[in-house]
Amino acid sequence: MIKPAIPPSSPEAAQSSFRLCGCLTDVAARDIPHFLKDTSGVDLLEWRLDIFLRRHSVDETAEALTHLAMRPRLPVLATLRPEAEGGAFTGPEDLRISLLRRAVDAGADWVDLEASVSPAVVADFAATSAGILLSHHDFKTTPPKEELKRLAQSMSSLLDGRPGILKIVTTAGAPEDNLRVLSLIPWARDVLRCPVIAFCMGPLGRWSRAVSLLLGSPWTYVQLPGRAAPAPGPFTPDEIRSILESLR
Amino acid sequence: MIKPAIPPSSPEAAQSSFRLCGCLTDVAARDIPHFLKDTSGVDLLEWRLDIFLRRHSVDETAEALTHLAMRPRLPVLATLRPEAEGGAFTGPEDLRISLLRRAVDAGADWVDLEASVSPAVVADFAATSAGILLSHHDFKTTPPKEELKRLAQSMSSLLDGRPGILKIVTTAGAPEDNLRVLSLIPWARDVLRCPVIAFCMGPLGRWSRAVSLLLGSPWTYVQLPGRAAPAPGPFTPDEIRSILESLR
Repeated sequence: MIKPAIPPSSPEAAQSSFRLCGCLTDVAARDIPHFLKDTSGVDLLEWRLDIFLRRHSVDETAEALTHLAMRPRLPVLATLRPEAEGGAFTGPEDLRISLLRRAVDAGADWVDLEASVSPAVVADFAATSAGILLSHHDFKTTPPKEELKRLAQSMSSLLDGRPGILKIVTTAGAPEDNLRVLSLIPWARDVLRCPVIAFCMGPLGRWSRAVSLLLGSPWTYVQLPGRAAPAPGPFTPDEIRSILESLR
Repeated sequence: MIKPAIPPSSPEAAQSSFRLCGCLTDVAARDIPHFLKDTSGVDLLEWRLDIFLRRHSVDETAEALTHLAMRPRLPVLATLRPEAEGGAFTGPEDLRISLLRRAVDAGADWVDLEASVSPAVVADFAATSAGILLSHHDFKTTPPKEELKRLAQSMSSLLDGRPGILKIVTTAGAPEDNLRVLSLIPWARDVLRCPVIAFCMGPLGRWSRAVSLLLGSPWTYVQLPGRAAPAPGPFTPDEIRSILESLR
């Protein structure tokens, strides 16, 4: 199996090419090819299938996934967030996993699996050609540092030595919450040997979305111009590029 | 004695009015009134007397300090950095302290005292109307976290319960060095009950100069348009205001 290359986790390499992941949220099936064509100034696309499914049936969604055969196109991360993890999907877990599997079989380059999935699910997706991103979201708070480290460690052990990326996203209640979450990036690089996407949501966390890239985060999530954001706080590609140009 | 009010250290208050301190470096005596007149978009001025003394005699410097009687004018922080602390002053310590005292007697609102001065010097300046900023600079590295905390603690004890601001500035050798230094700001606010200016110098530390304000740093140092910077990395007032506007 050929896995998508994991973006460089060293800060030097990361700074030479920041990666922006645009969020496809409330998009219509017919517009998918347009976004896949690299027209928005992003480096990859997160297709939020849970949000897509609010306006499309399961069959329409399966049909739309065939657009992933298109070439050339942007790399795609397939996400189907259940309601319990802050997403929009309220269906049964086996349907959720089978839809994600359809996305991967259709060509999705990455799959977002919540850290709450079973080790068997992770093993199944690890046997596909897609790269694995294990995610955890806290929409209310930012836990203490030791708790964040334990979480990263347990997520890393779910990867069981396979390559993958961890994503740990919390909500900033104070500016210093960002420092705690951002410090996971160099810590996991050194201790877990694992690339981590880590930032805070919310108005007080906005800056961490940009600074995470300076610390070696494989990518950051941006709002596609004119589309709704799936979580509060993201920049547009133009905004974040201008900020990063000034900051470094 | 009336002390200048210490800027708010709570992040909420700080974010409502970021303070920029412009660095007066290689300026001619005749131009001092121009800068004191609030023409550069900064909130206060650091008058680097050590750099001023490279082009002016002690008598000329004393004469220039009389401009501090001007009203209205920007608040002024008097700094006379010795060579051992990365500054330009190579004269004897008693001359250095007496010139700083002249600056304060002439009306300087703040005085920068290196953390290496004697407790007696701190006590002397604490008896004047100037606010005290105790500073420490590391032009080579960023020490480990515990060492930084011990440093802040020892600087705070030099204040001996008097109001004042600590300034701890290091050099970033890696992006994560910024997190360590920036975390001093909330830590000292909570533990030492003391406002701290903390950021990293150097290209990898550039972003910490902006983010320090989001964490509650009383002010950050900026390069006055068209003037040399005393240390590598600062933004101009326009640059940093635009960045902060985007980041928050």
